[in-house]
Formats: sequence, structure tokens, C-alpha cells
Amino acid sequence: MHIGLVGLGKMGANMRTRLRAAGIEVTGYDRDPAVSDVASLADMVAALPAGSRIVWVMVPAGAITHGVVEELAGLLVAGDVVIDGGNSHFADDAAHAELLAGHGVGYLDAGVSGGVWGLENGYGLMVGGDAATVEAAMPVFDALRPPGPREEGFVHAGAVGAGHYAKMVHNGIEYGLMQAYAEGYELLAAKDVVTDVTGTMKAWTRGTVVRSWLLELLVRALEDDPELAEISDWVEDSGEGRWTVDEAIESAVPVPVISAALFARFASRQGASPAMKAVAALRQQFGGHATKPADGA
Amino acid sequence: MHIGLVGLGKMGANMRTRLRAAGIEVTGYDRDPAVSDVASLADMVAALPAGSRIVWVMVPAGAITHGVVEELAGLLVAGDVVIDGGNSHFADDAAHAELLAGHGVGYLDAGVSGGVWGLENGYGLMVGGDAATVEAAMPVFDALRPPGPREEGFVHAGAVGAGHYAKMVHNGIEYGLMQAYAEGYELLAAKDVVTDVTGTMKAWTRGTVVRSWLLELLVRALEDDPELAEISDWVEDSGEGRWTVDEAIESAVPVPVISAALFARFASRQGASPAMKAVAALRQQFGGHATKPADGA
Amino acid sequence: MHIGLVGLGKMGANMRTRLRAAGIEVTGYDRDPAVSDVASLADMVAALPAGSRIVWVMVPAGAITHGVVEELAGLLVAGDVVIDGGNSHFADDAAHAELLAGHGVGYLDAGVSGGVWGLENGYGLMVGGDAATVEAAMPVFDALRPPGPREEGFVHAGAVGAGHYAKMVHNGIEYGLMQAYAEGYELLAAKDVVTDVTGTMKAWTRGTVVRSWLLELLVRALEDDPELAEISDWVEDSGEGRWTVDEAIESAVPVPVISAALFARFASRQGASPAMKAVAALRQQFGGHATKPADGA
Amino acid sequence: MHIGLVGLGKMGANMRTRLRAAGIEVTGYDRDPAVSDVASLADMVAALPAGSRIVWVMVPAGAITHGVVEELAGLLVAGDVVIDGGNSHFADDAAHAELLAGHGVGYLDAGVSGGVWGLENGYGLMVGGDAATVEAAMPVFDALRPPGPREEGFVHAGAVGAGHYAKMVHNGIEYGLMQAYAEGYELLAAKDVVTDVTGTMKAWTRGTVVRSWLLELLVRALEDDPELAEISDWVEDSGEGRWTVDEAIESAVPVPVISAALFARFASRQGASPAMKAVAALRQQFGGHATKPADGA
Repeated sequence: MHIGLVGLGKMGANMRTRLRAAGIEVTGYDRDPAVSDVASLADMVAALPAGSRIVWVMVPAGAITHGVVEELAGLLVAGDVVIDGGNSHFADDAAHAELLAGHGVGYLDAGVSGGVWGLENGYGLMVGGDAATVEAAMPVFDALRPPGPREEGFVHAGAVGAGHYAKMVHNGIEYGLMQAYAEGYELLAAKDVVTDVTGTMKAWTRGTVVRSWLLELLVRALEDDPELAEISDWVEDSGEGRWTVDEAIESAVPVPVISAALFARFASRQGASPAMKAVAALRQQFGGHATKPADGA
Repeated sequence: MHIGLVGLGKMGANMRTRLRAAGIEVTGYDRDPAVSDVASLADMVAALPAGSRIVWVMVPAGAITHGVVEELAGLLVAGDVVIDGGNSHFADDAAHAELLAGHGVGYLDAGVSGGVWGLENGYGLMVGGDAATVEAAMPVFDALRPPGPREEGFVHAGAVGAGHYAKMVHNGIEYGLMQAYAEGYELLAAKDVVTDVTGTMKAWTRGTVVRSWLLELLVRALEDDPELAEISDWVEDSGEGRWTVDEAIESAVPVPVISAALFARFASRQGASPAMKAVAALRQQFGGHATKPADGA
Repeated sequence: MHIGLVGLGKMGANMRTRLRAAGIEVTGYDRDPAVSDVASLADMVAALPAGSRIVWVMVPAGAITHGVVEELAGLLVAGDVVIDGGNSHFADDAAHAELLAGHGVGYLDAGVSGGVWGLENGYGLMVGGDAATVEAAMPVFDALRPPGPREEGFVHAGAVGAGHYAKMVHNGIEYGLMQAYAEGYELLAAKDVVTDVTGTMKAWTRGTVVRSWLLELLVRALEDDPELAEISDWVEDSGEGRWTVDEAIESAVPVPVISAALFARFASRQGASPAMKAVAALRQQFGGHATKPADGA
Repeated sequence: MHIGLVGLGKMGANMRTRLRAAGIEVTGYDRDPAVSDVASLADMVAALPAGSRIVWVMVPAGAITHGVVEELAGLLVAGDVVIDGGNSHFADDAAHAELLAGHGVGYLDAGVSGGVWGLENGYGLMVGGDAATVEAAMPVFDALRPPGPREEGFVHAGAVGAGHYAKMVHNGIEYGLMQAYAEGYELLAAKDVVTDVTGTMKAWTRGTVVRSWLLELLVRALEDDPELAEISDWVEDSGEGRWTVDEAIESAVPVPVISAALFARFASRQGASPAMKAVAALRQQFGGHATKPADGA
């Protein structure tokens, strides 16, 4: 099998490596000629078998993904397939499927999890689209997913959009899990009687109810820097946590944990919280409670 | 009527002033001779009519209140009454009632709201104890409470402990209300299209669903300092918010709003959040996501 | 002054009454001929002074408001003004302003608070648009707003959209306030020692920090039905709470309290919570903990 | 090695089995003669080597554990050691240690995780106490913990109390993790486009960021009952989640996720929520919003 791969950033390049290691021929294209296998998207398409091409798109979600899909719509032919493996919003998938369908080109959306570890461990895959198209692309999925039973690292989750929806939910859960471990870490670190915080979390990695890969990663981080002295408490959010809460609101699903984790990230990035200034101002007004002047005030 | 008042701090001194203005004779005692009317607690007790004394205690909750109640138990006689008007935990009230009952001395617990404004506006009062004792002290309550119908500023809420329990819940609600306004303030301040944040909140003070005294106070604060530039986002918590959440847990009552308000205060006082450092560390581990080094790291 | 008013539902009809009581002539139009003053929107427009018409639109947000604005664009002329007083999303305002500007027609968005009480008390008003248009419509705003200083019941909050944005935030705050009182009510009701829950909340209506109009309404409800026995715990949400949280996410503003209040409403409407079924299933899996079979299972 | 084990319920009996399988002789005592190896606690003590006895206590936390420790204090001699492996509150440990120290008897507190799976997989162990006592009991810990490196299933977390504190935090984290997965499950189940919810979660069990043992258990539950139709949404809480939030409040650590998970359990057990009745009543008061009558009202 010979496929195309658009986008050779950290994730895309790792995926190319893993695919090739599994015996799949890959022609990769990237805007950066230093890493691209070909000079243009058209060259990449030309290198693949017309009418049964598979093109995996692995570029930033939103306008860039949309641009690539549009360009591919003009280059591909009936029978070809585009797979969007990026972190696109699931609502974009229907539009991309329709656009490509106008050219007879199939479309799958693939949520991909695994981060930088996926190269070695394989990637968890959640795919949306019709069954025949999924089946046609299965060698690609089998090469990317972790070894072991297919159903433990791959799912055909539903129709177009289901893959990215599932990945979005996966990431929302991830926010909640990370915050739960983080709150537990802070509780341990706050208690004098616990003198081995890293050791305690490491002891949880086998046999306990909370054992997980994220826990193992946290232990790794603590083994490097037991008081996390080298890292700030400023935490970015990637967008998928926001989408998860937006979607929960759309579906009227209560998500107190996922939203709390998201808001904790927002708060982590605020210099001074306007809301807490307002609370401080209120306390001063009604109770004559001492407040701290703002720095420099 | 002639009563004793122990504790002449900001609240106690204001209450003495209000009581006297209502025609109640007050002998106040404070450890600080500069503000005390008498030299000792015994002198205060001696100045009052034995067997029908009313002594209002207005000192810090916990050990100090407990010490005053113990000392009064040794000085008062059957028929006298002690009223604890401080912010005691309701669980202390049964012990104080029992201790005094051993001397034939009555006991009431009074939750008091109103802050520095109470001197002028009157204090909202929530009282626990038996009906006859409440009735005996009613002239004191009537002098302290706001003018208007008694039931709009005073309640005999239940047995001993009910007054402080009600005050604790009052303060828990207060945390939630303040945080709700504060979040709204931040949302207004974050939006470019809204150019008059102070004016918007002021326009809410009549006619709207969210009008309240706290809103008026926030408007006052914003009129002084429209961007709250002079105040830090560091917010103390007085203890009653903590007790409210503890009690909610004891009673299995879900309090997502009150607890969120409490945790926002905890977070406001943290330099760097250990939990958010842990989340940042996790993101770095699994995704190679950029983190910020800690300041100075 | 003679204005048009589109939409004579509960809110619109009350506003017509209040406007007329203030000496403003109102021609109202409603699809329901039983309540309409005229037979058609065109008839309403014809009754007003061309080139200085003011038409207040008070119909359901979204498609219906949009339809009315489009129809008005075809009927009105340069110099006329449309005011959308409904609960429109602030993002709709720019489109409506632009559409009408194409005809030389001015546009204001007005957030309106006060519910069924507004007829008697007046409505809190938050207005977005340009200053000259706001000034032209000021007699209408003065008639609708509560008596007292203008700035305590009216604000020109900013450019087009600011009025509805402010109203959205107002409603988000309202969610938080209501939930805070509700949690406090439940805590009081859960505690045996508190024997007069209604009386306790009534005693908070003067002098205390938590006094507010919402508190007075809750006391009214409790005086009618002290154990709220006649009412279910099923709580609708109007949409503005959702928008507030969506917007908070867009602006990266942490809103733990407003979101918790929203999610509590979602949860109140679920028969059985799928999430809590999942938690129950997990406990059974790892601990052999007893679960309850589903009803009928 | 020959040790005593008090309490042969589900956990205790499994631990006895696992210890014996590892070659440790165990004399077990239970109040229930049908499962006990000996007739009395005294008989159990008599069977062990005086001065180097190890007695593992595995009975319900609180009064029952306290009673057993007191009785053991009267039976054991200097050089013996008691290990409390139950889910005791960490604050009880200091008292137990002191009581036993008066008899020259050592004390360790051991948090134990693993549930019914521990028999087969081993138990995660977190231990508090002094190093020499921990060392003396190490063969017992090695027999109980999972195979593999000791530090991945065992920790000497700190002084007396640290083991139970760590276990408490472990369980608090567990609440958060479970709720995060549960919210994600509900989001998947709520979305039509996702037609294979169970398969999606199963596909997360390898390679993804959210893979964990709890996820595997949830997949097992869904494989048995894909819509969780047989299980109610009523979720008990064991007490350790409550302690975690209490302790967070004591330490001023924000725990929005763990507390949200706890409150979701409280809410799951309420027939009708008094708080949401209050919100419904408020909406009716200010807006004339429709409410649902209570069932039967």
C-alpha cells in the first residue's frame, strides 16, 4: 500500500515513520521543503494510485485543514479517500465530506491519541465514516494503532464526525483525569506527615484503583523534579476541552468535572483575577475587611 | 433595661452605640482598658441586676468565646442569660448552653449580619434557644435589628445552635452571591463592546432580577475604582464558608456553588498552584507541550 | 411620542401598558389578532411618523426576531429606528444593525430585566448602539425603566450588541444567585435544629449581607408553601445561562459558579443520569459494591 | 513468618489467602466463628511469637477498629506490632499509635487499594510509621503487594498517619477519575453520530492518553450492559471522598474536581432536590415561568 500524508510536524513525521516501519509506502508533503518528500501537494497526489488513493491529512485544525481539503478536492478523483487525522472540530467533518463527495472522493475523520509516545506505542484511533471506506483504509489504521487486539486501539465509532467527536470527548475526559491527579498531588504535598510524595504516587502505579498511564507520566515528572520547582503553573488549553464543554451545553449534559478542569486552566493563566478583585472589593465594602493593595498600587 | 456587653471591637462598639441609642443601658467590658466601661468582667456583672442579667458576648469565636463563657458561668446566677453574638461554630453552642445551665444561667446563640453598616441600618439577627429566654431578651434584639417588621430582621430560628447555624448558612450563601457577581463583572470587563461596565452594573440596581445590597456595594467599589486597579485579587476566607461546606458534606447536601466560591478564594491566595504545576508537567510528559519555566527557574 | 411595538405576549403587553401609562402613544402589533391593535405590521408602520419612527420588537429570539427585523427593513425608511428588546443573542445584533443600516434605519439592542414585575416596578434596561440613536429613544427608555435616578435602571452600555451582552451576563449572574440561595435553603431544611426555615430566610430580608429581591421572592414562595411540596425540582433553562458559559469559554473567563448553576439545572431534568449509572457500574466492577438495580430492572 | 489477621470479611479473607499463598502463616480471627481460625482474639495472640508478633487489623473504620486496637493493647507485649489496614481516618492513627506505645507495641497504618481484584493482582500499599517497624513487617507487605518492583506497589509514605492519608487522597482522586469517565460516557451516549459507545471506550484502552484500569472496568461493564439499563444512577459514597474534601478545606487546597464528583454522588441519591425546588419556585415568582407540580401534588 502507498499513501499520502500531508503535514510532517511532530505528529505527522512520527506517523510516517510508524507507517513505513509497518511496510506501508508513504509520500509525505509539508509546506516546509526541508522535511517534505515532494515539492507540492500535486506531486504527492501524482505519486499515488489514482482512484484508490488514501491521503492522510495531519495539519492544524480549522482554516489550514480546510484549505488542504479544498485543494485535495481539486486534485483527487473518484474512488480516492481523504482521512482527516488532525484535531478538527467534528462539525467541520460533514462539510468536508460533502465537499469531497462532490468529486466522488471518500472521507473519514480520525481522532488520534497518543502524543509523542505514539511513534513507539501506537496511536489510539477513533474513526467516523461509512463502513466500506473504513475497511479500505484498515491497513493504515492497523499500522498506526497499538499492537494487540484491534478493538483495544481502534474503533469505527459511527458516521462522519463520530471520530472527531470521540476524540473531543477523549480529550475532555483527559482534562478531568489530569486535574484529579493534580488535586491529589497538591493534597499530598500540603501535608507534613507525608514525606515521600513521589514515592506515594509511584506506589499507586500497580494494583491500585487509580493506576493509569497518566499517573505513570506524573511519576516520571516527579522523579525528574520532585517539587515541580522547574515548571510554572501556567497551563494552556488546546481547544478540545472548550469544545467538550460547549457540546455538553448543547446537549444539556452536566459536566461539572470537565468544566472545573477547564476553568482551572483559564485561571492558571491569569495574572490577577478580575473576579477575585471584585470579591475582595465587596468584602472591603461590607465588612471593612482588610484587602491587599494591588502590586505597585 | 441594663445589659452587659463583652467585647468592644469594631462590631461590639457599634452595637453598644446602637443599643444605647435605643434607650438600653449598656455596661461594656473589653480587655483593652482604653475602650472598656469597667475594669473587669466581674465589675460588669456586678453592675447588672442579679437574676435577670443579660450579657451579650461579642468576642472572637473559639477559644476566646469559650473562655468568656466559662468565666461568666462562675460569675452569673440563676435567672441570668448569656447571648453569644459572635461567629461561633454552632457545634459550640450546645456545650456552652450545658455549661451555663449547670449554674441555672440561660443561653441564646445569635447570628448577627450587617457588618460595619449595622450601626446605621440595624443588624439581621438569627437566634437559637428556648422561647422564654428569647422573649426575655427581645428588647435587646428589637434595638439591634433593623427598623420595620420584626420578622424581616429577626428570627427565632430554633433550639440552641440554630442561630449560629443559620448565620453560617447565611455566610455560605454570601460566598456564592459574591462569586456570581464577580464572575459577571469579569465577563463584562472582558468584552470590548461593553464600554461602561460600572454603569451597566449600576443600571442593575433597580428593577432587575439581580438587584441586591451586595450589587450596590460592588457599584460603590467600581465608582471609586472602575478597573479595581488599587486592589489585589487576594481574598481571605473567614471560616464560615469552610464550615458551610463541611456541614454540607456532613448532611450530604450538594453545594457546587458555595464550594466553588470557597475554592476560588483558596486559589486566589496561592502564589503558584501546585496542582496546576502538576497539570503542566503532565502535558509536557505526554505531548511535549511547551511549558513555562517557573520564575527564576 | 407615538411608537410601534411588535409582540404582545406577556412581556410586550405589559410594556405597552406601562408605556401608555407614561403618556407614550403605542400601536401594538401581534400575529394574534385578538390582542393586536392593527391588522398587519405594515399597518403598524403606517400609523407612525415616517422618518422618526421607533419600533420596539419584543418577540422570541432567533428566527422569529430575525424575521420581524427583515420585514421591518422592507417597511421602514431612513431615520426610523428599530429596538430589539427581546432576549436575542448579542451576536445577532451586528447583523440586524447592518441589515437595517442598508435602509438608513437605526438599530438599538435593549436587554430588559424585571419579568412580570416590570409592569409595576419598571424594567432594568441595558442598551447598545450609537449615542444619537439612544438619545432619540430616551423617552421610551425613561417610560419603561424604574422611577428614580436614570442611571440606576438604565445604561447605555456600549456599541451595538452591548445591551444584549449585558443582559446575558445579568442572567448568568442570576443563575448563580438563585443556586446560592437554593443551596442555603437546602442546608437549612436539612438541619433538625433549625425549626423555622421560612422565618430564617425572611429575617435575612433586612439588614443582612444577603438581602436582595430574589431573597424576597424566595420568602414569598416559602410563605405560600413552606416545604415546597407543591413544586417539582425540574428546572428549565432559558438559553441565556448557556450563552453566558459559552461566552466565558470564548473569553477564557473562569465561571465555576455560573456553570455549576447551569449544570444543576441540566441534572434536575434528567430522569436517570447516564453518568451516575457509569459511576455506579464502576464501583460495582472494582469493589463489588452494591448497586441498586434500575427501576423495573 | 506467622502473623495474626483480625477481620475476615471480603477483604480480610482475600488477604489471608494471598498471604498464605506467599508462604506466610496466618492465624485469622473474626467475630464470626464460621470463618475464624480461632475462638478469640486472645487465642490468636497466643498462637503468635510473643515479642515479635505482627497483627494485621482489617475491620471497619471507626469504633470497631478502635475497639480491636484497645483489646490488642491489653493482649500484646513490647516488641509486637499492630498494622491497621482498614480505611481508618488518618487522624485516628496518632491515638492508636500512642495507646499501643504505652505497652511498648509498635504501630503502622497501611492504606490498601485494589478491591476484590487484590487477591489476584496484589494490593497497592501505602504505609505510615517508623522505618524500623516498617522494615520488620516488610515480608507481609511484599506478600500483599503486586509482583514487580516494590516501589510500584508499596510506599513508606511517612510517619504514622501518612499511610491512611495517602489512601484517603487516592480515593479522592478515584472519585474525580470516575466522574471524568462518566461525564465522557454520557457525552458519547448523548450524540447520535456516535453509534458504538462501548467500542469507542474500548478503543481507548491502548495507546491513548486516557487509558487506565478504571477505563478497562468501565468497558467491562458496558460489554455486559451497553446501555447500563440494569443499573440505577444511585451512587453511594464510602466516606473517604468526604474526608478528602474536608481535609482540602482544612489545608486550603482548591479541589473543584474531587468535590464536584462527591456532590454528584450526593445528588444521585436525592429523590427530589430541595435546592432545585427552590430554584423552580424562584423562577415561578419572578417570571411566571411554568413549573412542574411535584408528583402527586
